[in-house]
Amino acid sequence: MSTLKKELYEQPTVVARLLEREGENVARITAALRDQFNHVVIAARGTSDNAARYAQYLFGAHNQTQVALATPSLFTLYQRPPQLDDALVIGISQSGQSPDIVSVVAEGRRQGRPTLAIVNDADSPLARAAEHVIPLHAGPELAVAASKTYTASLAVLALFSCGLSGDAAALAQLRDLPARLAETLSGVAPILPRIERYRFMTRCAVIGRGFNYATAFEVALKVKELTRVVAEPYSSADFRHGPIAIVDENFTVLLVAPCGAVAGDLRALVADLQRLKAEQIIISDDESLLEQAHLALPLPADVPEWLTPLIAVLPGQLFAMTLAQVKGADPDRPLGLTKVTETL
Amino acid sequence: MSTLKKELYEQPTVVARLLEREGENVARITAALRDQFNHVVIAARGTSDNAARYAQYLFGAHNQTQVALATPSLFTLYQRPPQLDDALVIGISQSGQSPDIVSVVAEGRRQGRPTLAIVNDADSPLARAAEHVIPLHAGPELAVAASKTYTASLAVLALFSCGLSGDAAALAQLRDLPARLAETLSGVAPILPRIERYRFMTRCAVIGRGFNYATAFEVALKVKELTRVVAEPYSSADFRHGPIAIVDENFTVLLVAPCGAVAGDLRALVADLQRLKAEQIIISDDESLLEQAHLALPLPADVPEWLTPLIAVLPGQLFAMTLAQVKGADPDRPLGLTKVTETL
Repeated sequence: MSTLKKELYEQPTVVARLLEREGENVARITAALRDQFNHVVIAARGTSDNAARYAQYLFGAHNQTQVALATPSLFTLYQRPPQLDDALVIGISQSGQSPDIVSVVAEGRRQGRPTLAIVNDADSPLARAAEHVIPLHAGPELAVAASKTYTASLAVLALFSCGLSGDAAALAQLRDLPARLAETLSGVAPILPRIERYRFMTRCAVIGRGFNYATAFEVALKVKELTRVVAEPYSSADFRHGPIAIVDENFTVLLVAPCGAVAGDLRALVADLQRLKAEQIIISDDESLLEQAHLALPLPADVPEWLTPLIAVLPGQLFAMTLAQVKGADPDRPLGLTKVTETL
Repeated sequence: MSTLKKELYEQPTVVARLLEREGENVARITAALRDQFNHVVIAARGTSDNAARYAQYLFGAHNQTQVALATPSLFTLYQRPPQLDDALVIGISQSGQSPDIVSVVAEGRRQGRPTLAIVNDADSPLARAAEHVIPLHAGPELAVAASKTYTASLAVLALFSCGLSGDAAALAQLRDLPARLAETLSGVAPILPRIERYRFMTRCAVIGRGFNYATAFEVALKVKELTRVVAEPYSSADFRHGPIAIVDENFTVLLVAPCGAVAGDLRALVADLQRLKAEQIIISDDESLLEQAHLALPLPADVPEWLTPLIAVLPGQLFAMTLAQVKGADPDRPLGLTKVTETL
């Protein structure tokens, strides 16, 4: 079994462990921070940046808080950091090593702002730079392509949002989640052999909106890292403002479309893509949508929309890993990548 | 001559006219707004969203102001808008028609925040929703792919930044710019026949960083809209955190690499891409970098880095338009697109 597969299937356990171990720490941190900021700035790269995208929608919808994704080069190469008045500054990183992410958090602290590191390595430069730390407890992640640290980061953000809002019902929904992760993994397993269909695919678009905009980015990144297929992520709205021009019968669109507020928008896009004769792969818990897909990747029903990013990414990870095998690539050692990337 | 070509070559005139007509209006608006916000939220889609990316770096580096790109679905589909305390809310749109962009600005106004519309149609719903309006004066833009409204939007943002900072030297640099746009267009013209080389290209990455991160996004969008080539934009840092895995000798990377603070980072990437034997197209004013490209698209020298996005996009637009012709596509009527896209 590949290391990636092992780590991918650890996700229900990792998320359960995190929720158990970090509940009190997060409650303490959120109580201390609650009145100290009116917007959030997050610095992250790669997979962690996709977790930050989830925070944009989650903190917006559940905490009425605007989130900006930091532009690290302003802090490093340009040495012209913006004023961070009234901001909470968060850095997210598996390794906690990348100097540009550390710089943003260090500058936040220099300006006297509250800072938080979400890291797998609690003894890393990022963890040391931040006032508050929430560790992922994901154990060593050895596969180059991140899987369990992504879902663990989403779980931290969900826990943090519940702590800020004090919403006990949402917290109960979150605590119920690890079982649904396991269900998702076992539900998709029988379908994986059909991914042979994509042996010769060289490009695709991955579409999600709202909470699952993050999922589209993360699935596209896994596909690129593991298979060398060019996979570009979009919101359904941005896709209509130009990129839809590339779609024809040889173009694949993978849609992340669980039930919820954005489902109608995605359903309309599925209908348009059918008229354009696009190949469609659909990740959803909606039977009527799944029926319209060339490849249907089902999700368990009745997971609240705000938590679907934690389950909807799993079929995407399995798709990318299986496609790598179908294409004869080694899922543990993607060409040209290293586990820790340090950028300025 | 295609409508796109006509509009593309109008850009020096459009930017000159804008700077002439809007100087006083922008000075008045910036004087009124200067002390009313400590960060900025911008709502935009497609090409206008790429202009917003320029504002992230420009307002950060020259005005020490953090910029967040809005997540319009929170305002529309989810109906859970974030609190916009201390924010200036800006909407950018050529047509001023898209309901999601109007919603963000209208919500800003409902919350008592200062609001600004940057629009080509000063009688549009977006213009009516905002307290302040800066029109682009670009004249009707009839080609589906935007060109002159993009550079005009960048010029408005540059004028706005100068107004906020009161930096007279920067303003003088900006006023000097229209002549450099004309120089750029004429400098690239003799090279266009060589774009035949890319007749069978189906995918590429477009890379820029800092101020020209926006340029990478806009050039990638033009390539997708006009040629159906899958072109994905990245910062050089994000590209190293995963996507570089897709590069081999059949993969094209288009780099936007003018001289400036980020040039060293891009130069290092060019060296790495050479080791991976990638096909490289380079837009730059640096002779030593251009020499390493399979296709060199030169820029005039001595344009200050913060203004290079207004010239560096031009060779990218010309590349996309010429490639469309080489591939037998109609640059004025990309398949599957309409000029005004209304999304919720």
